[in-house]
Amino acid sequence: MSTLISNIGLLVAADGERRDAALVIDDGRIAWIGENPTAPAADDRTDAGGGCVIPGFVDTHSHLMFAGDRSAEFEARMAGRKYEAGGIRGTVAATRTATDDELLANATRLVAEMRAQGTTTVEIKSGYGLTVADESRALRLAQQLTPETTYLGAHVVPVEFVDDVAGYVDLVTGPMLDACAPQARWIDVFCEAGAFDVDQARAILSAGITRGLGARMHSGQLGESGGVRLAVELDAASVDHCTFLSDADIDALAAGNTVATLLPGVEFSTRQPYPDVRRLLDAGVTVALATDCNPGSSFTSSMPFCIAVAVRDMGMTPAEALHAATAGGAAALRRDDIGELAIGSRADLVILDAPSYVHLAYRPGVPLISRVFGP
Amino acid sequence: MSTLISNIGLLVAADGERRDAALVIDDGRIAWIGENPTAPAADDRTDAGGGCVIPGFVDTHSHLMFAGDRSAEFEARMAGRKYEAGGIRGTVAATRTATDDELLANATRLVAEMRAQGTTTVEIKSGYGLTVADESRALRLAQQLTPETTYLGAHVVPVEFVDDVAGYVDLVTGPMLDACAPQARWIDVFCEAGAFDVDQARAILSAGITRGLGARMHSGQLGESGGVRLAVELDAASVDHCTFLSDADIDALAAGNTVATLLPGVEFSTRQPYPDVRRLLDAGVTVALATDCNPGSSFTSSMPFCIAVAVRDMGMTPAEALHAATAGGAAALRRDDIGELAIGSRADLVILDAPSYVHLAYRPGVPLISRVFGP
Repeated sequence: MSTLISNIGLLVAADGERRDAALVIDDGRIAWIGENPTAPAADDRTDAGGGCVIPGFVDTHSHLMFAGDRSAEFEARMAGRKYEAGGIRGTVAATRTATDDELLANATRLVAEMRAQGTTTVEIKSGYGLTVADESRALRLAQQLTPETTYLGAHVVPVEFVDDVAGYVDLVTGPMLDACAPQARWIDVFCEAGAFDVDQARAILSAGITRGLGARMHSGQLGESGGVRLAVELDAASVDHCTFLSDADIDALAAGNTVATLLPGVEFSTRQPYPDVRRLLDAGVTVALATDCNPGSSFTSSMPFCIAVAVRDMGMTPAEALHAATAGGAAALRRDDIGELAIGSRADLVILDAPSYVHLAYRPGVPLISRVFGP
Repeated sequence: MSTLISNIGLLVAADGERRDAALVIDDGRIAWIGENPTAPAADDRTDAGGGCVIPGFVDTHSHLMFAGDRSAEFEARMAGRKYEAGGIRGTVAATRTATDDELLANATRLVAEMRAQGTTTVEIKSGYGLTVADESRALRLAQQLTPETTYLGAHVVPVEFVDDVAGYVDLVTGPMLDACAPQARWIDVFCEAGAFDVDQARAILSAGITRGLGARMHSGQLGESGGVRLAVELDAASVDHCTFLSDADIDALAAGNTVATLLPGVEFSTRQPYPDVRRLLDAGVTVALATDCNPGSSFTSSMPFCIAVAVRDMGMTPAEALHAATAGGAAALRRDDIGELAIGSRADLVILDAPSYVHLAYRPGVPLISRVFGP
């Protein structure tokens, strides 16, 4: 079964931008790219109507396996008030008491919402269970939605262990890892003051790597820490947030193979300063953009929204932001089959209801996703 | 033909918020509001699925009658570069050469986009024709899309009149007004340094008022001017932008009957500072939010996006922002049949795919409009 997408006003292909283009999909892969008038026949045909075709977004950071509502916390934060109840631990309590069906229905709805906004690959983390059974359950359910599952037992120290953090690290690197590793591709840790320190993060990621998991990390959200350099040292695929970075962090990222994934939805939804992406790009660091979709600090599921904010508030060009949201995300997942449109790559792509990807920033908040091809 | 909307998780009614509510629409008007379990029968039934029901958005400021593309200008501005070609005058040139069908198709597409994002009333301005024939044509076409049409011959001085501004004011208040008044409800003027000064604005609005048009004004976008006080003096329904206001402007607005309409899409898309809405609200001024949808300074058509930015960057509460985007807009159009949900008001309303309107800010960029009732 082959499909011709004709009449593409602007095609963002791996080898550059092409005007008046067409492409052919065969068995889920891109089989042909060329000029519209010379397009071959195919079993099926879609007219892009002069719209722009881009790779599907690769959203490499989301926390979708949760229950409960935190809109009141958001409202209090926006009003400058402290919100006493809840936080991540409130979500943990609600998630533990939710049924499998409830958790899966909520995450399924959010994945569908993401896809409608052009996301064709999504990573999903555990991290609101924080027991062996609940983390394992979250990953088992997440596997039904994506192959990019991440074990995040080390999201926060649960209330039961506040006086025994070392004991919790033993759990995360022991029985919980045993239960979760078979259902995860990645292991992640929140390495930040108030969560896990560098030594704990090293122990957690190293244990996961030994079990065949790829490493990722949350760090630099609230302040500088040694987490970023540890991520590079351990060859983590990505270190996420990177809002606060030292010169040594930048040097390490530039010398290593770890992507810096920026999450502007967090800064938008918490009124924090945005990360300095220019410093990263100038140093040659590979940058990705992701939503961090979660009920606490960033409940957007919209990669187009993140692109608009990255352009407006972080000073990325529209082309840089699109690249970070597609090829950058693919690099952050160490995937070479997604994130760009070339012969042989997966045909995960989006037809925009706009003549250019620039409109993703030029028309903020406007649903511009006309059609999505992909998994 | 009556319709019951049942199972409303949260209803934003004129007399307050109600949980677990229902309402009945009869002949386009709200006939009944009450508790879900006590809802009467109706010819047709829609289940809101526990979602929130809000009034349809009233977008009182848009420039949809245009042709041409200005995405390159946006891209240059975001990169900090000066863009020499184009500006409003580039849109004027493209609009004059466009056919009626082209202009109407573009505006129709944008109105449909707005409706899909919850807007049930939209005001549309002329202002990219700037000749008798082209302004009249724009209003004739706009009338096919909305009763809220605004004659904005005084948008900018066209190139033909740069050395004879007085001559252009004579045209705007003379033959152009003659041709446009029958097709417009409102007259508007851009009263700002570089556009029209206070004396010219007074002459223009006064001429329109004499012909039975209601007055509106653009002012305070680029700096303080006497425009805001003139708008109040002439009892304009609204003065729009209000980014720069003197204490005297605030006092005048508080004492008068003119709404201050804020357009945060402009500040987002031009990286300008946001207006100080708290100062207006504290003074008792009625505030509206609108998109200013136009190809130059704000090409968003999304009222939810404007609400999210108003909460994040202007410090409005979600309830204040929703009120400004609905009842505030109705006041800015001097309408009492829209903008709130009460017995007898128009059943222009939106079912959200969310339990609360707070989610419009809590979930920025996410399409949350489940269903729209209204014209």
